Amino acid sequence: MYKIVLMRHGESQWNLENRFTGWTDVDLTDRGRQQAWQAGELLKQEGFTFDVAYASVLKRAIRTLWIALDAMDAMHTPIHLNWRLNERHYGNLQGLNKAETAAKYGDEQVLVWRRAYAIAPNPLDIDDKRHPRFETRYARIPAEQLPATECLQDTVTRVLPVWNDSIAPAIKAGKNVLIAAHGNSLRALIKHLDSISDDDIVNLNIPTGQPLVYELDENLKPIRHYYLGDQEAIAAAVAAVAAQGKAQKD
Amino acid sequence: MYKIVLMRHGESQWNLENRFTGWTDVDLTDRGRQQAWQAGELLKQEGFTFDVAYASVLKRAIRTLWIALDAMDAMHTPIHLNWRLNERHYGNLQGLNKAETAAKYGDEQVLVWRRAYAIAPNPLDIDDKRHPRFETRYARIPAEQLPATECLQDTVTRVLPVWNDSIAPAIKAGKNVLIAAHGNSLRALIKHLDSISDDDIVNLNIPTGQPLVYELDENLKPIRHYYLGDQEAIAAAVAAVAAQGKAQKD
Repeated sequence: MYKIVLMRHGESQWNLENRFTGWTDVDLTDRGRQQAWQAGELLKQEGFTFDVAYASVLKRAIRTLWIALDAMDAMHTPIHLNWRLNERHYGNLQGLNKAETAAKYGDEQVLVWRRAYAIAPNPLDIDDKRHPRFETRYARIPAEQLPATECLQDTVTRVLPVWNDSIAPAIKAGKNVLIAAHGNSLRALIKHLDSISDDDIVNLNIPTGQPLVYELDENLKPIRHYYLGDQEAIAAAVAAVAAQGKAQKD
Repeated sequence: MYKIVLMRHGESQWNLENRFTGWTDVDLTDRGRQQAWQAGELLKQEGFTFDVAYASVLKRAIRTLWIALDAMDAMHTPIHLNWRLNERHYGNLQGLNKAETAAKYGDEQVLVWRRAYAIAPNPLDIDDKRHPRFETRYARIPAEQLPATECLQDTVTRVLPVWNDSIAPAIKAGKNVLIAAHGNSLRALIKHLDSISDDDIVNLNIPTGQPLVYELDENLKPIRHYYLGDQEAIAAAVAAVAAQGKAQKD
């Protein structure tokens, strides 16, 4: 009935350095840019065209989208940016190395922070200069809606309005939709779409820069989903995401 | 009262080759990309910030905007793309070299085609594969609105609705606006803003990739305007644009 494409941004500088990123506005690495270009080429080869694209207000998602649309020769695609598609806010973990944090607090504690559905890391201090209230791009958002930390449940709560109010109506109006976002904002969206339980969502890992196709029925319930591209490489990338929070790489 | 920035795209491949471009979707040259980056750096240095940006649906304008916003570290700026900001449609002149065309038809005829307010070149044939009706990006625009050629008067007529309906209300709502467009769509807009006569508009030439600031009063009437950057270089660039349609460079 409907077909949409979700895409986590390409590798960022802090993906490479294995740091908690959250709302920190880090850029893509060269490899991340290549991934984005390859994703666009793949989408073009497979005959995808988009009437509208959505992205967060973080540059790693926006640049991924720009590069992919460029590779598709579709720079004229309208883009809607929305802070609700931002990565999960990682609170005071932002900037810390995941493996070092695991070495300090233990693998289990880091897995809780990374993946427990309803437990958030400690928040950024309200006067921390990294707090989103100091950034002009968030100036029009009511202060009480701006997170200083989030668990995935919080992310689900703030992602769903952009899905329900903007993206879902566009899909139902027959538009082909591309969404460029982040590991956890996409996990939040997929949890909703596939009705994944709070316990099972921990096992969902999304690799960087790989187009993920969702086919939806008339009520926007998923019929099936699949990654475009080299399935073996994608499986390895998914496993690598799952392993990021361990003190020692497996 | 209000301050907006207009920017013609950076040098395109067909600017470099001195061809009539119109709606042909040619890309920027490396120099055009550098101009766009420098424009963004200049805007940043001068303290400009933008709440919203507008561009045509042609990649030379979109890429100019993307690069300038990147240089400003403002990729999160919302962008509205609108076909009404496209370059003037140059009819069956599109693709021809300006100097060769002048050598064939005479400088005067080419000046008429380039600058006469109400005289359009011959249109593209309705079955010409370059006709905009064959492009998906124009699929939602009523066929009778899609040009196959335009004189500047036609361009004014189709540019003004996006100014009146979208851009002017945004300015009056207090938003800082950046517009990335084309030599003739910007001439059309400036003709309207500055109430330039049909005869005098022939003398207005806009260089590529230079931020042009317009300060507007509460009724959006211009108080003054000026280019940012090296004024001598800009004057030389303006003179070069004026000379493009001559068989021999002066």
